[in-house]
Amino acid sequence: MSKLTDVPKRILIGRALRSDRLGETLLPKRIALPVFASDPLSSVAYAPGEVLLVLSIAGVSAYHFSPWIAAAVVVLMFTVVASYRQNVHAYPSGGGDYEVANTNLGPKAGLTVASALLVDYVLTVAVSISSGIENLGSAIPFVVEHKVFCAIAVIVLLTLMNLRGVKESGTVFAIPTYVFVAGVFTMIAWGAFRGVVLGDEMRAPTADYQIKPEHQGLAGFALVFLLLRAFSSGCAALTGVEAISNGVPAFRKPKSRNAASTLALMGLLAVTMFCGIIALARATGVRMAENPAVDLVHNGVPVGADYVQHPVIAQVAEAVFGSDSILFILLAAATALVLFLAANTAYNGFPLLGSILAQDRYLPRQLHTRGDRLAFSNGIVLLAGAAMLLVWIYRADSTRLIQLYIVGVFVSFTLSQTGMVRHWNRHLATEKDTAKRRHMIRSRAINAFGAFFTGLVLVVVLVTKFTHGAWVALLGMVIFYATMTAIRKHYDRVAEEIAAPEGPSDDIVRPSRVHSVVLISKIHRPTLRALAYAKLLRSDTLEALSVNVDPAETKALRAEWERRGIDVPLKVLDSPYREITRPVIEYVKSLRKESPRDVVSVIIPEYVVGHWYEHLLHNQSALRLKGRLLFTPGVMVTSVPYQLASSEVAKRRARKEWNAPGSVRRGPAQERDRESSASQ
Amino acid sequence: MSKLTDVPKRILIGRALRSDRLGETLLPKRIALPVFASDPLSSVAYAPGEVLLVLSIAGVSAYHFSPWIAAAVVVLMFTVVASYRQNVHAYPSGGGDYEVANTNLGPKAGLTVASALLVDYVLTVAVSISSGIENLGSAIPFVVEHKVFCAIAVIVLLTLMNLRGVKESGTVFAIPTYVFVAGVFTMIAWGAFRGVVLGDEMRAPTADYQIKPEHQGLAGFALVFLLLRAFSSGCAALTGVEAISNGVPAFRKPKSRNAASTLALMGLLAVTMFCGIIALARATGVRMAENPAVDLVHNGVPVGADYVQHPVIAQVAEAVFGSDSILFILLAAATALVLFLAANTAYNGFPLLGSILAQDRYLPRQLHTRGDRLAFSNGIVLLAGAAMLLVWIYRADSTRLIQLYIVGVFVSFTLSQTGMVRHWNRHLATEKDTAKRRHMIRSRAINAFGAFFTGLVLVVVLVTKFTHGAWVALLGMVIFYATMTAIRKHYDRVAEEIAAPEGPSDDIVRPSRVHSVVLISKIHRPTLRALAYAKLLRSDTLEALSVNVDPAETKALRAEWERRGIDVPLKVLDSPYREITRPVIEYVKSLRKESPRDVVSVIIPEYVVGHWYEHLLHNQSALRLKGRLLFTPGVMVTSVPYQLASSEVAKRRARKEWNAPGSVRRGPAQERDRESSASQ
Repeated sequence: MSKLTDVPKRILIGRALRSDRLGETLLPKRIALPVFASDPLSSVAYAPGEVLLVLSIAGVSAYHFSPWIAAAVVVLMFTVVASYRQNVHAYPSGGGDYEVANTNLGPKAGLTVASALLVDYVLTVAVSISSGIENLGSAIPFVVEHKVFCAIAVIVLLTLMNLRGVKESGTVFAIPTYVFVAGVFTMIAWGAFRGVVLGDEMRAPTADYQIKPEHQGLAGFALVFLLLRAFSSGCAALTGVEAISNGVPAFRKPKSRNAASTLALMGLLAVTMFCGIIALARATGVRMAENPAVDLVHNGVPVGADYVQHPVIAQVAEAVFGSDSILFILLAAATALVLFLAANTAYNGFPLLGSILAQDRYLPRQLHTRGDRLAFSNGIVLLAGAAMLLVWIYRADSTRLIQLYIVGVFVSFTLSQTGMVRHWNRHLATEKDTAKRRHMIRSRAINAFGAFFTGLVLVVVLVTKFTHGAWVALLGMVIFYATMTAIRKHYDRVAEEIAAPEGPSDDIVRPSRVHSVVLISKIHRPTLRALAYAKLLRSDTLEALSVNVDPAETKALRAEWERRGIDVPLKVLDSPYREITRPVIEYVKSLRKESPRDVVSVIIPEYVVGHWYEHLLHNQSALRLKGRLLFTPGVMVTSVPYQLASSEVAKRRARKEWNAPGSVRRGPAQERDRESSASQ
Repeated sequence: MSKLTDVPKRILIGRALRSDRLGETLLPKRIALPVFASDPLSSVAYAPGEVLLVLSIAGVSAYHFSPWIAAAVVVLMFTVVASYRQNVHAYPSGGGDYEVANTNLGPKAGLTVASALLVDYVLTVAVSISSGIENLGSAIPFVVEHKVFCAIAVIVLLTLMNLRGVKESGTVFAIPTYVFVAGVFTMIAWGAFRGVVLGDEMRAPTADYQIKPEHQGLAGFALVFLLLRAFSSGCAALTGVEAISNGVPAFRKPKSRNAASTLALMGLLAVTMFCGIIALARATGVRMAENPAVDLVHNGVPVGADYVQHPVIAQVAEAVFGSDSILFILLAAATALVLFLAANTAYNGFPLLGSILAQDRYLPRQLHTRGDRLAFSNGIVLLAGAAMLLVWIYRADSTRLIQLYIVGVFVSFTLSQTGMVRHWNRHLATEKDTAKRRHMIRSRAINAFGAFFTGLVLVVVLVTKFTHGAWVALLGMVIFYATMTAIRKHYDRVAEEIAAPEGPSDDIVRPSRVHSVVLISKIHRPTLRALAYAKLLRSDTLEALSVNVDPAETKALRAEWERRGIDVPLKVLDSPYREITRPVIEYVKSLRKESPRDVVSVIIPEYVVGHWYEHLLHNQSALRLKGRLLFTPGVMVTSVPYQLASSEVAKRRARKEWNAPGSVRRGPAQERDRESSASQ
C-alpha cells in the first residue's frame, strides 16, 4: 500500500507547486513592503483631509492646530509600530490580533477582536474604494459625478477578480505603490523647494475660499473636544498597520527581523507623507469644510450643493505641479490605484480570518479548508455585499464612512497589545536568562504603553465619533459576535451528542448482517453496472427493487429481467399513487422491523450529466429518495454513478486550475501549518 | 421474504385509503355535473357580453344580429357535445384530447394539442379570475376599482390552497354551481314572466345610453367579418366542454353512459343560459361598447375613462331583480364563486396533463410520479406565475384576455375530433358485427362533422382575432412545443447512450474487487458507525482515510486510533492547501490506476440535522466531495447517516400527510392505471 500513498502525494505536491507557486516563493523586503503597506500608506490619501475637515468647524483659524494633531498622530503611529514589532518577534507564525488576543486573553476577547476585524475589512473596502473614486475624480470629473455608481462598479470588478481567483504577483502591488510613494515624496520635495528656495507662492484651488465656521470662537472644553475629534479622524492613517503581523511567514529568513524592519520602514514612510501633506496643505492654503455646500464661501456666496470638494492630496498636487500637469494626473491615478489595492487586501484578509475562525468553530467548518473555491467565494460575496451596502447608504462619501472606520481598528489594537503584555508576563514567569528577561521586560513595557495609548485613543474615538456613526460599526461588531457565538454553541452541542463513548456502545456494536437493495427503474447500463457493483459487496441478502408507477413498464421490466436471466431476485412494490419515495422508505423500514440489528444498504444508480438543466431532467426522484432515506435509521445510501458523455463538460470545469487569492501575503502553506500547529 | 412484501403493501393501501379517500369514492351524476361543469357553465358569465361588445362596433342596430349568433353558438355547442360523447364511449379510461390526438394522429399532433391545452389552462385561470372579479365588482365597487390587485390576490389564494393540498369535496363544487345555475334560470324565468305576462318594462342600467359606432353603416364583407368576429367571441361559451372526457374514470358505473349523459345535460344547461341571457340583454336594452370611455354616450357626452362597464349578466340581473336586491347580490356572488372554481379546475388539469406528458418524456420524468408534492408544486407555481403575468399585462381585462383564449380550445377540439375519425376508421377495418359497424359509422359521421365544424371555427377565430391577441396564444403554444420537443430529444439521446447491450459489454463485465475507503475526520459516533457498517460489506480491502488539513488534529486522531486499537488501517493524505476534495479524488484515481478493473467504494459518515441553517454548518465538504466523486469512473459513493436529535423535526415535517388536489376529478388511481395500461 505504501506505494499507493506516494502517488497522490507526488501528484499533490507537484500540483501544489504549479497551482500556487507564489505561495512557495518568499518575499524580499522590497516586495513585502508594497504587498503589505498598500493599505496603511494609502490611508494618507484621506487622513490629512479629515483632520482639516474637522478643524474647519471652528473656522480656518483652527487650521493652525493641525501640526499639533499631526504630531500626536506621529507619536501614536510610532507607538503602534513599536508595539507590533514585538508581536512580530513573539509570533513568527504570523499571530494576527485575533490569535494574540485569543491565546492570551481568552476566547471572549478573541471573538471581540475577530468581530472588530471583520467589520474593519468591510469598511476598508468601502472607505478605500470611495476615497479612490474621489481621487480619480480630481482628474476625471465624470467619475465624481457618478460617484456611487463608479464605486460599486469597482467593488463588483474586484469581487469578480477575486472570485475568478486571478493570480496576484508582488509586482502588481509594487509598481503602483512605489509610484504613489515616489509621487508623494516628489511632491513634498518639489513643493518645499519651490516654496523655500524659489519662494514662489503656490495656491491650492480653494486657497481664496472662505470658511463659515459652524461654531464661532470655540474655546475651553468645546475646543479640546474638537481637537480630539480631529485627532481621531487623523488616526485613520493607522489603519492596516497590523497587516504585516499576519504575514510574517511570507517573509524571507530571518522572517521576524525582516518583518520588523519592513514594519518600521512602513511607519516612517507613512508619517513622513502624512506630515508632508498636512504641511503643504497649510502652505498652499487648502480650504476644506465638513459640509462645503453651505460653509464654503467664494466671493461672499456659498459654493452650493453641486460643488465637489477634492481631496487634500489632489489639491496640493494641483498647487505644486500645476493643474492638468502630467505629474498631477499621474499621482491622482496612482493614488486611486493604491487605494483599490488596499481594498483588495481586505478580499484576502476576510477569508483568511474566516478560515482561522472556522478552525475554532466560530464559523462553518468548511470555511477552514483553504483554497476551497466555494467556501472562499462565500466570504468574498459576503464582504462585497456588505461593502456595497455601506457605499450605497453613505453615497460613497469617504468622510462619512471614516466615522465608522476607526473604532474596529483600535479595538483590535488595544486588545492585541493587552494580550501581548499577558504574553510577556507568562514567559517572564518561566524565563531564567537575564539577557532574555531584560529584553522581554523592554518588550512588555512597549506593549503596555501601546495598550494604554491605543486604549486611550479608542475611548477618544468612541466619545468623539459615537453619534457621527461609530455606533453603526459597534452594531456590526455585536451582530458578528452574536452569530459566531451561536454557531460555536451549536457545534459544541453536536460534538457532545456525537462524542464517541469509551468502549462499545449501543449504536456502535457491530450490526449482524447487511441487506442490499438495488433500485431499478429500467434495465440499462447504469442499472446493470449498479447490479454488478452490488454483487461485489457480498452482502448477506441482495435484491433488486422496483416501484410500480406504471403497470405496463413494470410488466416490460419483469419480462426483460427473465429474458436476460439476471440472477438477482426482482421485487416490485405497488404504488397506487405513483409515488416512489414513500413505498421504498416503507419497505426499508419493514426490513429493519424484521431484523432490527441488521443494516439496509440501498444502492441507487445515477446518471451524471454536465449541464445544470440536464440535471433538472434526471435523478430528481433519486435525490429526494436519498434525502428521505438519510432520516431512516440503520440505512446506508450508495450512489453508483454512470457518467454520460455530457458529464465531460462538468469534469473539465471542475478540473480547471484555481488558486485562492491572497496567497502571496500568506506565505507557504506547509510552513504556516507547521508553525501554527507548533504554537498550539 | 413474502411476508416482507405484505407489510408495506398493507401499510400503503391503508395509507392510500386514508390519504386520498375522495379518489376512491366514485361520483354520482348529480355531483359529477358541478365538478366538471363549473368551467363551461361559468363561461356564460362572459360569453354573451363579448358578442354584444363586438356587435356594438357597428352600432346598437347591429344588436339585432345577436340571436343569429346565439343560434350559431348553440349549433356549435351541440356539435361539440355530440362529438365528445363519442370520445367518452371510445376512451373509457378518460382519453383526453392529448391522448386521442397522440394515439390516432401521431406524436406531432399530440404535442400540438398538449401545447394548446397548457396555454389554455393558463388562460382559463386568467380569464375566469378576471371575469369573476368583474362580476363581484358589479355588487362591490371596491373590487373593480382595484381590479388587478384583487385578481392577483385571488390567484395567490388559489395557488396557496392548491400548494397546501387542500382536500376538495364534490359538495364544494356542487353548492355554488347549483346556486349559480338556479339563479340564472330564476332570472330568465322571472324576467320572461315579468316581460311577457306582467308586461312591465325592465330597463338595464345602461338602457338609455347611446353607442357611437366605430364604423357607421357597415355592409358586405366588412359586416360579415364583424359577425364572424362576434361569433368567435361567443365561442368562449364552449371552453371547458372537453373536461368530462378526461374524467370518465371518476364516474359511477356504467361510466361511459353516465359521463355521456352528464355531458349532454351540461350542454343543454349551457346553451339555455347563454340564449336566455342574450334574450334578456336585448329585452332590457343592455348597452355595451368595446371601449366605453369614448363610444358609450350618455346625454350626449361620452362616459369617460372612469366609467365601469358591468358584465351583461350583472346588468340583466339588476334589471330583472332590481339593483341591490338580495337575489341580484346572491347571483353576483355565485357567479364570481363559480368562475373561481373554474379557475381552480386548471390547477388540477395542468399537473395532470403534465404527468401524462412526463410519462411520454416530453417533460421532466419526475412530474410523472403522482402525488409527488414537489413535482406537483412546480406545475402549480408555473401555472400561477404565467396567469398572474397575463392578468397584470392585460390589467385583468377579461375582454382583452378572451381574445387570446379561444384559439387553443379549438386547436384541441379540431385535432381530437380528427383523431376520433381515424380511431373509427381503424376499428371499422377490423370490426365485423354489422350492428356495431353501423354504430361506429354513425359515430364517425358525428366526429367528422365535429372536426369539420370546429376546424372551420378555428380558422374563423384565427382570422378574426389574430391581430387582437390570438398571436400571443400561438406564440405561447410554439414555446411549449419547442421546449417539450427539446426535452424529448434529450431523453431519447440519453436512452440511446445508456441502452443495455445484449450480452455482457465492456462496462458491465463484473469488476474483480472492491476497495472500501471510509472517510474519517474525527473519531465520534458517526465515524465509528460508518466503520462498523463498512466492515459488514466484506470488501476486498478496507481502509480509513483522513485528510491532514491541520497537523495537530491529525496527530490527535492518529493517537486516539492507536489507543482505541481500531482494527482498520488509517491512511492520512497530506493537503498543503487544506483542501479535502482534491486529495481524496486524486487518491481514489490512483487506486483505480493501480487496478483498473476494480471498484472503489467511498464511505462517508454524515450527520443528519433538522433545520436548513444547521445543514449549512455540516456536511458541506462531504456534499462537495460526493459531487466530485460522481464524476470519477469506477466509484460507488456511500453515505452512512447519523441522525442527530434535531433531525426529528425534519422527520416529522416529512411524515406530514398530504394529498394532491384534483383527485376528485381523476377517479381512483388503481383503476386509472389499470385501464390506461390496458389501453396502451
